[in-house]
Amino acid sequence: MEMWFSDEHTDNVKLSLRIKRQLFSAESEFQRIDVLESEDFGKVLVVDGDLMLTEKDEFIYHEMITHVPMAVHPDVKNVLVIGGGDGGVVRELIKYDSLEKIDVVEVDPLLVEVCRKYIPEIACSLNDSRVEIYNEDGLRFIRSRTSEYDLIIIDSPNPFGPGEGLFTKEFYGNCYNALRDDGIMINQNESPFYEEEAFQCQRMHKRIVETFPICKVYQAHIPAYPSGHWLFGFASKKYHPLNDLNGVGWKLRGISTRYYEPRLHYGVFALPVYVEELLRDVE
Amino acid sequence: MEMWFSDEHTDNVKLSLRIKRQLFSAESEFQRIDVLESEDFGKVLVVDGDLMLTEKDEFIYHEMITHVPMAVHPDVKNVLVIGGGDGGVVRELIKYDSLEKIDVVEVDPLLVEVCRKYIPEIACSLNDSRVEIYNEDGLRFIRSRTSEYDLIIIDSPNPFGPGEGLFTKEFYGNCYNALRDDGIMINQNESPFYEEEAFQCQRMHKRIVETFPICKVYQAHIPAYPSGHWLFGFASKKYHPLNDLNGVGWKLRGISTRYYEPRLHYGVFALPVYVEELLRDVE
Repeated sequence: MEMWFSDEHTDNVKLSLRIKRQLFSAESEFQRIDVLESEDFGKVLVVDGDLMLTEKDEFIYHEMITHVPMAVHPDVKNVLVIGGGDGGVVRELIKYDSLEKIDVVEVDPLLVEVCRKYIPEIACSLNDSRVEIYNEDGLRFIRSRTSEYDLIIIDSPNPFGPGEGLFTKEFYGNCYNALRDDGIMINQNESPFYEEEAFQCQRMHKRIVETFPICKVYQAHIPAYPSGHWLFGFASKKYHPLNDLNGVGWKLRGISTRYYEPRLHYGVFALPVYVEELLRDVE
Repeated sequence: MEMWFSDEHTDNVKLSLRIKRQLFSAESEFQRIDVLESEDFGKVLVVDGDLMLTEKDEFIYHEMITHVPMAVHPDVKNVLVIGGGDGGVVRELIKYDSLEKIDVVEVDPLLVEVCRKYIPEIACSLNDSRVEIYNEDGLRFIRSRTSEYDLIIIDSPNPFGPGEGLFTKEFYGNCYNALRDDGIMINQNESPFYEEEAFQCQRMHKRIVETFPICKVYQAHIPAYPSGHWLFGFASKKYHPLNDLNGVGWKLRGISTRYYEPRLHYGVFALPVYVEELLRDVE
């Protein structure tokens, strides 16, 4: 039997993966959730028809959204992860013994349950004693928090669907308030390549630039995501992503990774000319 | 009407582009050549069913294979391009007034003819007076050349089909001999992500490491290519790709680009941990 899952990158471009079997499918209160087993990418989490993560390359996304700020901020104790019900960001965070509290705000309890059952290699990290999961709307959760976190990671799917509110200026302002005076906010910032995503990417950057004094965008090669060229936003109240890197300190922690290393740190912030121009237009 | 072209990245992964129309299709003595007009990637050149280049992202490949060595070598006069019948590398090379001679060895005259007719935006550069096109086998051409070139760019499709001989140790040895004492050789080095390509990538690197004293691999984000994470090999007799970069000198030439800038130069050589490990295994 031939079975293929196609992730639509645009109306005119799609990436298709050969599927061995569908492991799970259900509609939650918020969205449709599927887990597929693919030939080349291992298990694949699909939400509302969009590829969220694959077993083969999720390490790239999760390492890059986590270790880049952790190698800069000298003393992270309290972290907030918005979205991230799959546990990938938390798996990277718990590698740091010095962290004291990790709050995860995932609106959809079914997503967490499904990930725990079908991708335990990733989701098992959610059992760490420092982790608290809030099944709440991220936008509402953040409104009531002030000067509480050293690091906020916005691991939101995309600017459509239930996560839409996580891409507004109001939301970024609330994140700013929820951060301590030397806090850092990281967001997944879409891809700069296809027109519609490039526009989202620009819009997000504009709103963050209007909220935080220090804002830089960095990149990673994530093969399963549209165009494979993925951006992240580094927004900060005090620490500069390059000038305040403590690569030696990070290496001394002995954290094991497969993509990130401080050796890469400057390079991931060196964006191609066309991406720089896209972002500069709104700075 | 729905028409899609699919580029097989592996037996189990494919990237599909919606096609407006097929502009050309023929079998040459060497291979099947198609030119398609796609919705999102503009014109697409397909050889033996494999995507060779797209109008939308070819600038990334061609800039990165050309400007990286040109920003390092202080005095390039004679260049050899092996493959490259589409003219993309030559279009970047002719931006340098100081170049005196560009030899292009493209085994298939039909490929050159088709590119001239259907993608003149790229191929028109082949009319530059410094360019000489040899419709010969690259492997045979290079055997008779000694200390002739400052830069050799191997713009070969892949290690299968008619270009197979361009991936052997004998071939790299002949390139070494065809280079002057301070010459540089650049090759497209496949992607490190999918298993089969990662193996090719490793094998190529091994053969080059055995031939040249200085060998470093660098990367670019090329969305239409498998995994979007593409590697290039920088092999050199004298100049080091990082220590001998002359970024200021390059900027002073006033060359216009959309991806490369010396600002990116160090970053593109900073490879992810898993790629470093893949290459280190054969060094």
